[in-house]
Amino acid sequence: MLPQALNNVIESLGRLPGVGARTAERYAYFLLKSDRNISQNIADALTDLHDNVKQCPITFAIMDADEELSPLYTDPTRDKSTILVVEEPLDIYAIEHTKSYKGVYHVLGGAISPMDGITADKLHIKELISRIEADSVTEVIIATNPSVEGESTAILIEKLLHEKYPELKITRLARGLPLGISLEYADQITLASALNNRTNL
Amino acid sequence: MLPQALNNVIESLGRLPGVGARTAERYAYFLLKSDRNISQNIADALTDLHDNVKQCPITFAIMDADEELSPLYTDPTRDKSTILVVEEPLDIYAIEHTKSYKGVYHVLGGAISPMDGITADKLHIKELISRIEADSVTEVIIATNPSVEGESTAILIEKLLHEKYPELKITRLARGLPLGISLEYADQITLASALNNRTNL
Repeated sequence: MLPQALNNVIESLGRLPGVGARTAERYAYFLLKSDRNISQNIADALTDLHDNVKQCPITFAIMDADEELSPLYTDPTRDKSTILVVEEPLDIYAIEHTKSYKGVYHVLGGAISPMDGITADKLHIKELISRIEADSVTEVIIATNPSVEGESTAILIEKLLHEKYPELKITRLARGLPLGISLEYADQITLASALNNRTNL
Repeated sequence: MLPQALNNVIESLGRLPGVGARTAERYAYFLLKSDRNISQNIADALTDLHDNVKQCPITFAIMDADEELSPLYTDPTRDKSTILVVEEPLDIYAIEHTKSYKGVYHVLGGAISPMDGITADKLHIKELISRIEADSVTEVIIATNPSVEGESTAILIEKLLHEKYPELKITRLARGLPLGISLEYADQITLASALNNRTNL
């Protein structure tokens, strides 16, 4: 019933995560009412996306396609002996925004989730293990998400690394109260961790 | 810090209504991980959008660019003597889905909102008035949104039409309880309307 071209936009935008028919309609109609430059900018950006972004073959971070290796890895001011392990490439930028980390990264490409067909061999764990020796790594910081999948993945990586390199320091991000949450709303596991890992004032 | 091509996608998608930086990142990263066909489909659909959709010069409904007039207007089975007036083109499809209306439509192109610079002369009110005689219209159903802007617009249109065509039947959509809402959650105005406009069982 809708004009075909509008329907095409609604259907294609409806494939974005969390975008249902009504949201896609809203986006499509907004674009139709707006200057055509806005649609064209999105179209151009999307056309370029896959050609101009690739994965670093060592860290699996995403980078401009004209780079050989991730600049966060090749940067000589960064400490290659510490690797922070994350699930997804964008997690790197969350850590970078803190300006509190000067080591390098390793992207797993997800977390173990048998329900979604993501088994350990689909993650870049082998490549992480081979980096330990190659870069004389002394510490691996596991920064998977605090979810069931992230936890299982962290435990597996810890086990594999510890078996092969018993001397290697393996740490993970601290658990505790995030800024701005009241005690009464914190879940029990978080609160227990915050208590167990209490710090001196 | 992000690859430029990914940044471009995030920035361009961030111009969609209600899409903040985090949502745009989520969309962009989903597209990067997904098959490139998904991005390309969106890009193609957006490139075609403005060329292949236009407005009907009589009803201001949107239609395929190769149509002369909206098919909902030219359809000989539809009753041209009844016009249902809506704010936006997509409102037409909400009414059509009910399969309860066989007249024709008129799109105002918004509702009066001085704050947003939408004054009465920016809406297609003159064109509506000129249709009354041209199509021997006997009833105008005002179906603007039940908002302050929609109400003001409805009152103005009623006044203008009544001044010029005192005999014309002017109606508006009924107010009452929507399906599935409990009495205790209904607002006072809706509940008062539902009471005043009660129907026989």
